[in-house]
Amino acid sequence: MERRNVGILGATGAVGQRFIQLLADHPWFNITWLAASDRSAGKPYAEACNWRLDTPLPDHIAKMVLQPNTPEDAGADLPRIIFSSVDSPIAKELEPRFAAAGCAVISNSSAFRMGADVPLVVPEVNADHLEVIESQATRKTSGGFLVTNPNCCAIGLVLPLAALHERFGIEKLFVTTMQAVSGAGYPGVPSLDILGNVIPFIKSEEEKLQEEVAKLLGTATANSFQDADLTVSAMCNRVAVLEGHTECVSVKLRKAATHAEILAAWAEFQPLHGKGLDGLHLPSAPEFSVEYQHGDTRPQPRVDLMRGNGMTTTVGRLRPCTLFDWKFTLLSHNTIRGAAGAAILNAEILAMLGKFDFRKFPAVNSAKSLQPAESPVQA
Amino acid sequence: MERRNVGILGATGAVGQRFIQLLADHPWFNITWLAASDRSAGKPYAEACNWRLDTPLPDHIAKMVLQPNTPEDAGADLPRIIFSSVDSPIAKELEPRFAAAGCAVISNSSAFRMGADVPLVVPEVNADHLEVIESQATRKTSGGFLVTNPNCCAIGLVLPLAALHERFGIEKLFVTTMQAVSGAGYPGVPSLDILGNVIPFIKSEEEKLQEEVAKLLGTATANSFQDADLTVSAMCNRVAVLEGHTECVSVKLRKAATHAEILAAWAEFQPLHGKGLDGLHLPSAPEFSVEYQHGDTRPQPRVDLMRGNGMTTTVGRLRPCTLFDWKFTLLSHNTIRGAAGAAILNAEILAMLGKFDFRKFPAVNSAKSLQPAESPVQA
Amino acid sequence: MERRNVGILGATGAVGQRFIQLLADHPWFNITWLAASDRSAGKPYAEACNWRLDTPLPDHIAKMVLQPNTPEDAGADLPRIIFSSVDSPIAKELEPRFAAAGCAVISNSSAFRMGADVPLVVPEVNADHLEVIESQATRKTSGGFLVTNPNCCAIGLVLPLAALHERFGIEKLFVTTMQAVSGAGYPGVPSLDILGNVIPFIKSEEEKLQEEVAKLLGTATANSFQDADLTVSAMCNRVAVLEGHTECVSVKLRKAATHAEILAAWAEFQPLHGKGLDGLHLPSAPEFSVEYQHGDTRPQPRVDLMRGNGMTTTVGRLRPCTLFDWKFTLLSHNTIRGAAGAAILNAEILAMLGKFDFRKFPAVNSAKSLQPAESPVQA
Amino acid sequence: MERRNVGILGATGAVGQRFIQLLADHPWFNITWLAASDRSAGKPYAEACNWRLDTPLPDHIAKMVLQPNTPEDAGADLPRIIFSSVDSPIAKELEPRFAAAGCAVISNSSAFRMGADVPLVVPEVNADHLEVIESQATRKTSGGFLVTNPNCCAIGLVLPLAALHERFGIEKLFVTTMQAVSGAGYPGVPSLDILGNVIPFIKSEEEKLQEEVAKLLGTATANSFQDADLTVSAMCNRVAVLEGHTECVSVKLRKAATHAEILAAWAEFQPLHGKGLDGLHLPSAPEFSVEYQHGDTRPQPRVDLMRGNGMTTTVGRLRPCTLFDWKFTLLSHNTIRGAAGAAILNAEILAMLGKFDFRKFPAVNSAKSLQPAESPVQA
Repeated sequence: MERRNVGILGATGAVGQRFIQLLADHPWFNITWLAASDRSAGKPYAEACNWRLDTPLPDHIAKMVLQPNTPEDAGADLPRIIFSSVDSPIAKELEPRFAAAGCAVISNSSAFRMGADVPLVVPEVNADHLEVIESQATRKTSGGFLVTNPNCCAIGLVLPLAALHERFGIEKLFVTTMQAVSGAGYPGVPSLDILGNVIPFIKSEEEKLQEEVAKLLGTATANSFQDADLTVSAMCNRVAVLEGHTECVSVKLRKAATHAEILAAWAEFQPLHGKGLDGLHLPSAPEFSVEYQHGDTRPQPRVDLMRGNGMTTTVGRLRPCTLFDWKFTLLSHNTIRGAAGAAILNAEILAMLGKFDFRKFPAVNSAKSLQPAESPVQA
Repeated sequence: MERRNVGILGATGAVGQRFIQLLADHPWFNITWLAASDRSAGKPYAEACNWRLDTPLPDHIAKMVLQPNTPEDAGADLPRIIFSSVDSPIAKELEPRFAAAGCAVISNSSAFRMGADVPLVVPEVNADHLEVIESQATRKTSGGFLVTNPNCCAIGLVLPLAALHERFGIEKLFVTTMQAVSGAGYPGVPSLDILGNVIPFIKSEEEKLQEEVAKLLGTATANSFQDADLTVSAMCNRVAVLEGHTECVSVKLRKAATHAEILAAWAEFQPLHGKGLDGLHLPSAPEFSVEYQHGDTRPQPRVDLMRGNGMTTTVGRLRPCTLFDWKFTLLSHNTIRGAAGAAILNAEILAMLGKFDFRKFPAVNSAKSLQPAESPVQA
Repeated sequence: MERRNVGILGATGAVGQRFIQLLADHPWFNITWLAASDRSAGKPYAEACNWRLDTPLPDHIAKMVLQPNTPEDAGADLPRIIFSSVDSPIAKELEPRFAAAGCAVISNSSAFRMGADVPLVVPEVNADHLEVIESQATRKTSGGFLVTNPNCCAIGLVLPLAALHERFGIEKLFVTTMQAVSGAGYPGVPSLDILGNVIPFIKSEEEKLQEEVAKLLGTATANSFQDADLTVSAMCNRVAVLEGHTECVSVKLRKAATHAEILAAWAEFQPLHGKGLDGLHLPSAPEFSVEYQHGDTRPQPRVDLMRGNGMTTTVGRLRPCTLFDWKFTLLSHNTIRGAAGAAILNAEILAMLGKFDFRKFPAVNSAKSLQPAESPVQA
Repeated sequence: MERRNVGILGATGAVGQRFIQLLADHPWFNITWLAASDRSAGKPYAEACNWRLDTPLPDHIAKMVLQPNTPEDAGADLPRIIFSSVDSPIAKELEPRFAAAGCAVISNSSAFRMGADVPLVVPEVNADHLEVIESQATRKTSGGFLVTNPNCCAIGLVLPLAALHERFGIEKLFVTTMQAVSGAGYPGVPSLDILGNVIPFIKSEEEKLQEEVAKLLGTATANSFQDADLTVSAMCNRVAVLEGHTECVSVKLRKAATHAEILAAWAEFQPLHGKGLDGLHLPSAPEFSVEYQHGDTRPQPRVDLMRGNGMTTTVGRLRPCTLFDWKFTLLSHNTIRGAAGAAILNAEILAMLGKFDFRKFPAVNSAKSLQPAESPVQA
């Protein structure tokens, strides 16, 4: 199979670097276009980027020249698949323009996650929501559309929740997070703020976590979404961890479940099963989306971070709650499963669903004249 | 006023060092006796102890020779006030022997906290519980008795809770802790376990926190205690912080309270007022037992740890909860307010209440023959 | 004694905060003027500053309004003593203007440290260099002058070196530093760069350390300085420490010295003795400028940082070197002794030397017309 | 090729875990025997071991039962190749017994490194030293022998040094280390000692580094070694890094070398070339044993640790020294290249050299009666 050309918007940031690391040898996608901020346009990637990952920057990427970050300037080189990890205000302006120009925008930004016709998707949880892209305004004109993945904390959390919701129904939950500094990007959290310290606040994080979980576990109609009937209360903290968000959860179920039944729900979680997607194999999908670790002291970033190549939510410490039903702790890799890997998995399932077949739509170039006003987002 | 002689059991440990630091210039108490494990007996303190605090070890303490850790071996030098910070199994064996020998044992150990006739006290919260010592078996014979302070997490938490409980009644609460490594003593947590990591488990900590809060907010009769009618659900974690436990709390009140009313309850918290203790000034008592810090990012160990010389619980981020009534975050110094300072404050109020007046009881030495079987603890 | 009014230039930065902390209750100085960047002028200090120290921001400082950062705008309120901790490029422009306006500028900036007529002073080491201010151009017109303290690493190092240089002569030395993140100010070092990491580079640090030590141990004539005849080779690193620079030193002496003689040189180091300054008591001077700690594992930031209220260099591990003569390790508090405290100590000795007696010079206000071109610095 | 059976002595420790991780899929070796301390004998590995690595413990290893840690008890199951990572006093007693029993003991312990007939080897540096095993007493009787790898710091250092020594000759060098906590094993360094701290001492480390480098760069005769004529002065520190030792080096060469010539020496370092080992491919050997990183801030544990799968020494910051000739900083993975990986590489080259062909020697079992007194080590 020929690999599809893809571009990365926000390529020099912390998540942009993860996109490059994870896509460098991807069997389905081929990076042909990189853009970051205006001032880095024209520079070789290696020069514009302070590479902070522990695998070397691939040589062919190092030499790629950063492009202007607008579809209008990209010309014929603009790939039709764009991974976006720009800050929310920039995403708000740019992502609709790329969609209007005929691109499938797979965004990690929070700007449009709660948009009325924008799917917020974790494939194992609500792949069926992706159909709503067909109702986006740009889809009908240029073929372009916009799909988002949730906040890093919501992704790790919704996987074990989905398994429980399916069998027992979730009524409400408390979640307290201890989040890694990489979630704030680079330079991000000053060392004076986090060495030997805890910061009990992350801007807008609690709100995102509370609203995104309900959308993810909700239902989709032809052109909109219905939130699940559950309530989340979140308390979010930053701790001195490099990668990996830990979350302490207490959940109230609608239907009683034993310890063994909970473990079984996680062990038997077959995410794409029964949704017309049986047997799909996505390159970035882990063997187990949820993995339970026995032993009092698990999960831990130190030992569990890279399970499923960083795509698995590790769960541990399932025990009764004196107030709700069950308490447990989970760990999720925040810049792989919680960001770049999430977007790539969304792209993979979109590819499988044929959403990247743009043959009936005009070429990207001729889409240039389309108005950004015809945004894919109604909200 | 002449200073009373005191001894420290477990003097070389992390909490023992704090006892020494905080008592070195204490206006009421004078350290005359130090004991640690058997193998350190006979050594000068400076030699037996790996001093880890950031103020120098006082010279006169450095030269003191560690004594055998039993009252029987202490002879005439045994002071009648003993601060204890030995591990729970050792406390279980030794503390009743010191009480039987006529000593007031002010313990930071968990061994007897839930004992049926053992006061578990934070002076600002339940000083009236101290009267129950008069019903302890040893009190009647040798004059000795046993008083405990709560677990480090429970102390920091119960201060702001007490202010709310008094005015609005607490029905239930969730609390998730992020605890400093000093809470585990020395050598304690291996660096390989905590550098860049979170450990989502501390042995018995959740249980302690859940049961101690109810006892602290409960009532005392002449010879026993009645737990408060409230339920706590705790999730405890270890983080890479040196000193200072951070706790995220969501609380359900029995009577509705506004944001302003909650802040007022904390600001106006006059702990000893109306308990026949008005106007008492205890040397280690902070000006404010609970202090609220405005600003999204507070409290933090970095900036708030030493408020009230480490004896104040700093609270911040008061905000509505989607599930219960109010959420907030608190910080408490775990080896000062949460351990040594708590015990010293207990000793100070005991002194004010006249409980250290042993004139009517036999001298400590003649108490030697008393049986440890006549333990102060019924449970 | 009436306290002299002082101002702080760069008052909101990391060092500016230390100035405020250390000067808040100073017996000789009274903060009456604060300035930071242009954009913070007009704001109350508490609002413009992200206070990061572990003692509370004093109330009266919190309410002070930040002034424009030029002497011309200060009017009659400009104090004649200005502590400066602005970045080097800003210092280069502003400090000469304050000196020209008649102020004694006590600077922690690197901008003029190597200036031909600017004293670079650590009082215990080279207080006699201060006389060179009398040759500064501004001194003669407005009475204003400029004095600097060394780089944070050089200060900690030069104290034990001075004791050795005096007795044995230093020919050369290697020094490798492990420096705290607070040295880079705030936000400074990103947490992604330092958590669990070492950065083997600090811009210009090695050069500063190499040249400043020679000036400090050198001699002063009426109007210039002669470097000491010694060579330093420095390797500077950033480590995950909050406060406290550790330095590993190997030194070649001109005259052989035994282990005992080295220890004696440090123990008997009477810095101001024999320089016409015997018996001077400066409020910020530690009892011992150099203190040796026995025991293999000392000094350590954890336990030794605050010796002498953060003004003492702690030395340990004196042992023979296979290549030079002696190796040792030292620790110095980089934002107290290494920055704000160093400048305050310079101000204290200047006060004792009568350099703050401006009676014969015009009032600060009338100095406004003086040209900044008549800078105190020839270089 | 059939894989050779190997055993691991000290299998549950930090280095033992690395042995298992690195040997789990090794093309030449097959783990068939595991031993740790007496008290863990008889337990399944997963139960006796607190696995701390970030890749999962392989299932087949998890189930292996730990054996008694003596060759006499091993019986017919004793493999003839034993990797050893036990503490030095235990190594001193046990390793000669395994060698006497006919085993090739590939040790990471320091016990016999400086032994007069024990090769201390880094294959790229002094593979020719391995011939000295033929002169070991046990080699002649049972076929068993003992080979060691250097201290973790010495390994990382000697690779770039060897490249320089070969071309320019090294006369002397200063080295200051900043070492990761994993070097101390588990539980190892208490978190209270290292969080936000530096420990300026590691027991015996400076002595090891100083003497091992001279042996490594020295020459071997038929039955002994001659140290290289160079002097090392080392200062060793522990920092809050998980894995990766950073070393700051200043070196005096015997023959002048330019910046470009130094870089060329490293770039062209072909370790096994010209030693009769040209073209050897060892599975664990990195493509580049020494790799230079340009850019002021390199190398760093964060980004360079895993170069060459943790087997490469990364060098950076080559610059002139004011005292010697050249300064540079290096980074080496201390538990891969500095311990388990070093031993495995030694085993690989021993395999290539035919040293594991034991056909002419008695079976391991019949060696049981051999006297440990006939130790392989004369010293």
